[in-house]
This record gives sequence, C-alpha cells and structure tokens, in this order.
Amino acid sequence: MARTGTAREKILAATLKLVREKGFTATTVDDLCTAAGVTKGAFFHHFASKEALGVAAAEHWSATTSAFFAAAPYHRVDDPMERLLAYIQFRRDILRGELAEFTCLVGTMVQEVYAEHPAIGAACNASISGHATTLEPDIAEAMRKRGWTPDGSMTGWSAASLALHTQAVLQGAFILAKCSGGPAIAEESVDHLSRYIRMLFGAPPAEPAA
Amino acid sequence: MARTGTAREKILAATLKLVREKGFTATTVDDLCTAAGVTKGAFFHHFASKEALGVAAAEHWSATTSAFFAAAPYHRVDDPMERLLAYIQFRRDILRGELAEFTCLVGTMVQEVYAEHPAIGAACNASISGHATTLEPDIAEAMRKRGWTPDGSMTGWSAASLALHTQAVLQGAFILAKCSGGPAIAEESVDHLSRYIRMLFGAPPAEPAA
Repeated sequence: MARTGTAREKILAATLKLVREKGFTATTVDDLCTAAGVTKGAFFHHFASKEALGVAAAEHWSATTSAFFAAAPYHRVDDPMERLLAYIQFRRDILRGELAEFTCLVGTMVQEVYAEHPAIGAACNASISGHATTLEPDIAEAMRKRGWTPDGSMTGWSAASLALHTQAVLQGAFILAKCSGGPAIAEESVDHLSRYIRMLFGAPPAEPAA
Repeated sequence: MARTGTAREKILAATLKLVREKGFTATTVDDLCTAAGVTKGAFFHHFASKEALGVAAAEHWSATTSAFFAAAPYHRVDDPMERLLAYIQFRRDILRGELAEFTCLVGTMVQEVYAEHPAIGAACNASISGHATTLEPDIAEAMRKRGWTPDGSMTGWSAASLALHTQAVLQGAFILAKCSGGPAIAEESVDHLSRYIRMLFGAPPAEPAA
C-alpha cells in the first residue's frame, strides 16, 4: 500500500512539474512514467485515463496549495485589509525560481482543456475559485469595518468579485512572466493590485458602477 | 498566387479558431488541414513546421488585432485618461460570444510553448507587449497632465507598467472566463481595472512603492 501510494504521489508530482513546463496535452503518459519512474501499468492502475489524471492533478494542486496558504504568515496580521495586502505581498514574494515552479498548474491546464475536457476544467475552476473564497472573509470584514455591505450594494463591487479579481491579476501576471521569461513584470502587476486595494479601502464608498 | 495566399489565410484562420478552442499542442496539422480544407502538401508548402505555423499565427494575430484596435472608436475620446478607460470599456464590450471567439490566441499559446518553443513564445510576447505599447502614449499624456513623469519616478508606477498591467488583467480575466464558462466574472475584473485607473488618476501621486 505504501509503495502504491508513493507511485501515485510520484505521478502527481511529475504531472505538476511537466504540465507547468509544457502544458497538459504535450505531457504524455510516457513522459510522466519516465519522470515518475513508474511503469505504464502502474500509471493506469492509479489513473483510468489521462483525463482522470488531469482531474486528480487539479485536486492534488488544490489540496497542496490550500495547505501551503493555510500555513502562510499573512493570516497573523490583525487588520483585515492589511491581511489581504499581506496575502498579496506573499504571492509576490513567491514569484521566485523557474517559471514552471511559480506559475499555476490549473491556470495553465484550463486554457487548453476547458472545451475538450470539461471535467478537468471544472476541477481547475474549483481550485481557483475555491482559493479565491479563502480571501472573501477578510475582504468582507474590511468592508464591514467601513460600513459597507460585502454584497456590493453600496460599493458597486462585492467581496466575492474582488477576491476573484486578485486571482485574475495573478493568473494574468503568470502569463506576462512566461512571455517575458521572468517575474519582473508580474511583480509590477501585483504591485498595481496592492495599490488598487489600498485605494479602494482608503476612499469613501464609490458610486455603484454604471 | 491568389489561391496560394488564400490557402495560407485559411490555415491561419483555422489555427486561430482551433488553438483558442483546444490549445496549440492538441491542434494537429491534420486538424488544421481538415478545418482549412487544404492538403498536407499545401500546409507544408506554406509552413515548414508546426512551430513555424505557431510563429506565423502569433504574427497574424498581432497584425489583425492591431488593425482591429486601430479602427476602434476609443481613439476619438479627447482626454487621455478617458481614452484609456474607453479602451478598457471596449475590451469589456467585446467579451461576447463563444469563449474561443473572445479569448486570446497568444495568451493561450504562450502558456504551453514558452519553454518548448521559444520562437513562438517570443512572437506571443511581441504581440502582447506590442499591444500594451499602443496604450503607453495615452497613459503618459494623462500622467503629464497631472504633473507626473511617465517613468514612474514620482508615482512608483510607470506608464509602461500600467499598460502591461491592463493586459495582465485581461489575460487573467480570460482564464476566469474559461474556468467559469462565460464572461461574467471577466467583466467584473475589467470593471475593477477601470475603477483602479480612475482612482489612480483622480488621487494625488502616491509614495513610490517600497
């Protein structure tokens, strides 16, 4: 059982590495078996198909990144807006190393698979929107501290929409990082996001968007 | 010559459609020949390899989107900040139809190819950063109207970085659209971007970022 579990983990780890390097379709089962050091038989013992692997990889990504972010230091900041900004600074701080190390598995996969493999697309969506949901309580608390309702009825933007926007900026920043070959432009986009959030909470409630 | 030109155009049009539907690697030369109604001989007459097609498709995308945006009505707005906001509203307005119709060829391709096909990655970068460059004069003019230098020495952000940030938000918004199966969340991210830009230019120069 332990060996079986280890093989599954090795295949998932190889998937996270290779898909972030060259995408889901370009990563073949043979590539994964070689990288994980497992046989094709072992692969198909654990995953009925490459699509099933894609779903499992997105779920594994969700589980490991959830644990990683749950343990991150930004949660210890007292003020909810400052806690959100500390989260964003943390995201900026981890834009390090190789592109395949700091970019997002599920943001990469969904680009290719959303139409052809809806099950993988749904798992990618669950990962990104699930992570966004972890930010909503802090945003809602920061809004309530200013006398604003988190549903956006007073501001024209809701806690949920700002949480998703942070993920849009990060995903777009990863694309610019891949375009430019490094994190510098991505860091500047993350700085724009921090500046936006600081202004948003520093200013009085704006008119609802037209 | 005219028929040859037409075959090339048909292959490029099929590339734009299929790659936005299922990614670069999943789009085979056979798929493209079928969709374009050309023979494999004709394909390889026009493109030496699939990589050469990827470069040509990114360049074709740059050319057609450049013409499309050059002809768009936002250029007729007088005030440079309002012109930038009209551009963003225009980007919001064209989030319509099928996901493969409104999402970005080069943002999709670069995710997969940046490491394996650097020539395609460079063409994707030229497309995205080249488009961002078209926004810089308006941003620089809006900054100068406020007594700020466009290099960011007074604001902590440059015209170039804000121009690239608009593209990061749009690219990230496309990913959220693919995740959620439609443009609604993408529209909200674009609204956050508009709100940011309005606040950025309405407020006095901020302290340079740490």
